[in-house]
Amino acid sequence: MAVSPGFPGLRVAPGEVRTIACVGSGVIGGGWAAYFLAHGYDVVAWDPAPDAETRLRHLVDQAWPALTEIGLADGAARDRLSFVPELADAVSGADFVQESAPEDLGLKIGLLADIDAATPPDVVVSSSTSGYGMSEMQVKCAHAERMVVGHPFNPPYLIPLVEVVGGTSTSADVVAWTSEFFKVAGKSVITMDREVPGFIANRLQEALWREALHMVAAGEATVEQIDLSITDGPGLRWPVQGPCLTFHLAGGQGGMAHMLDHFGPSLQSPWTRLVAAELTPQLRDEMVAGCEREAGGRSIDDLIAERDRGVIAVLRALGRVP
Amino acid sequence: MAVSPGFPGLRVAPGEVRTIACVGSGVIGGGWAAYFLAHGYDVVAWDPAPDAETRLRHLVDQAWPALTEIGLADGAARDRLSFVPELADAVSGADFVQESAPEDLGLKIGLLADIDAATPPDVVVSSSTSGYGMSEMQVKCAHAERMVVGHPFNPPYLIPLVEVVGGTSTSADVVAWTSEFFKVAGKSVITMDREVPGFIANRLQEALWREALHMVAAGEATVEQIDLSITDGPGLRWPVQGPCLTFHLAGGQGGMAHMLDHFGPSLQSPWTRLVAAELTPQLRDEMVAGCEREAGGRSIDDLIAERDRGVIAVLRALGRVP
Repeated sequence: MAVSPGFPGLRVAPGEVRTIACVGSGVIGGGWAAYFLAHGYDVVAWDPAPDAETRLRHLVDQAWPALTEIGLADGAARDRLSFVPELADAVSGADFVQESAPEDLGLKIGLLADIDAATPPDVVVSSSTSGYGMSEMQVKCAHAERMVVGHPFNPPYLIPLVEVVGGTSTSADVVAWTSEFFKVAGKSVITMDREVPGFIANRLQEALWREALHMVAAGEATVEQIDLSITDGPGLRWPVQGPCLTFHLAGGQGGMAHMLDHFGPSLQSPWTRLVAAELTPQLRDEMVAGCEREAGGRSIDDLIAERDRGVIAVLRALGRVP
Repeated sequence: MAVSPGFPGLRVAPGEVRTIACVGSGVIGGGWAAYFLAHGYDVVAWDPAPDAETRLRHLVDQAWPALTEIGLADGAARDRLSFVPELADAVSGADFVQESAPEDLGLKIGLLADIDAATPPDVVVSSSTSGYGMSEMQVKCAHAERMVVGHPFNPPYLIPLVEVVGGTSTSADVVAWTSEFFKVAGKSVITMDREVPGFIANRLQEALWREALHMVAAGEATVEQIDLSITDGPGLRWPVQGPCLTFHLAGGQGGMAHMLDHFGPSLQSPWTRLVAAELTPQLRDEMVAGCEREAGGRSIDDLIAERDRGVIAVLRALGRVP
């Protein structure tokens, strides 16, 4: 891995983090605080909003029953959360900083510079941004090499995914350290090799969301129909198998290859406002190969059986079948 | 409800259907056959492909353990499936016809005309099409008023959703009868007032899918990363709360209103290749009002608690938390 010139190395190993600073304590920052507390970390929070501490403690209290139900780490306690009046008090003693400020690029650039100035240079600073690239946010940081994106999903205390990606000035060591830290902390991590606006899950989710907004704006569907179409339709498959493996099973025994050969022409249909990718032989082969790698030797029949068990388990867990 | 001039009325009430013809018995048609058999119907299938009967019986056998686990209707049995060599033998004695042929508009137009000619005119014919409008498919049918779309999701024997929508020549009575029939048969039904290519769930799913194809084509993500980003991210929320209610909870106590006011500018970000809808005050208010209707008096805190219970139940059902 390339290390930026002058990068001093990191203070602690990913497994040695004890104290985490949560900068910004709204829905996402508060969710992070609850998650880290439940996993046995000390958390120091800062947020300049009025009543921020009261709202943060409400968020943590609200998440705690869920976190207790799925199991607290030894020694985990809500009273290991402290809220401090100054940013520097939050970050100066932290082993790791998670920033979760509002989604405003100018604000993020300024705040990350402030965090950078107040945080020892051998501590990683991770941003919860929903889609800005670290390259565009780290521009005013003196120690830009330790700035990284660690993008969670709401609520961060229950949804496992964190997308980790650096900017052009970020050290590859920092990206690797951050991925490892989130894994140690119990998260499911996707480490991206390159910056893509919206990362991966948000690009997919955002495409769906924009189509939904268009449909409501055009009178094509109501909010309730949109939600029902997902909760009672594709949404039941997606926790079990992702969109690619789902469609691998739409092709019968022929899998993704047959599916693309059969439904390929449908990509030209106006079934969404999003213009389709050209289904080149190369893209076709890459989709097929990816599904085969994911299947890892499991046959179509194996995958169907796994999907069926998973969907039934989800339906039953939600009280929708006996 | 408007009834087309000359429409003779329907043979049986939705609750009196006994025999169902499944025309086309691939992954979807075979899934329908398994579903209807498990719900105690007689099923007569036809498919012109070589080995179609063998493949159909394999599909039914494959689905049967899942259907048995969630409960068979009294008298439900696989030997109530018959496979016939001629289309007319399948449809002439049926109380309801479900067509699930390959997704090819020309083929569908011809096949629906053939079905129409062989099916008594007082029997509803429903198409599993993934996205063609009935208006474009019913053009060669003499009894176009009984042709309707009943769009399922794979596998039809487990995923509850069916989208029901008529074409310009379809009787409103037929749309209502079909919606009622699917409800009686245990399905979750969305009845659409107007034809939209791709209906609702497929438009949403297709937007996500096209973005995924673009990302693979552009080298922005692998197939495995795309699937993991959904199964470990938003996919865990969607069986519990749809995309609108999910984002209602991204806005903190301010709900969808705050979410749109906060993330509205992000709609201009390149977070997907799909250009955003203009967030007019009218659209904003409609999204907010829709979420409030769905919430039905439940507070943000109530909805958060429900979401958390649901996500934990899903995670636990899939063996991902203790």
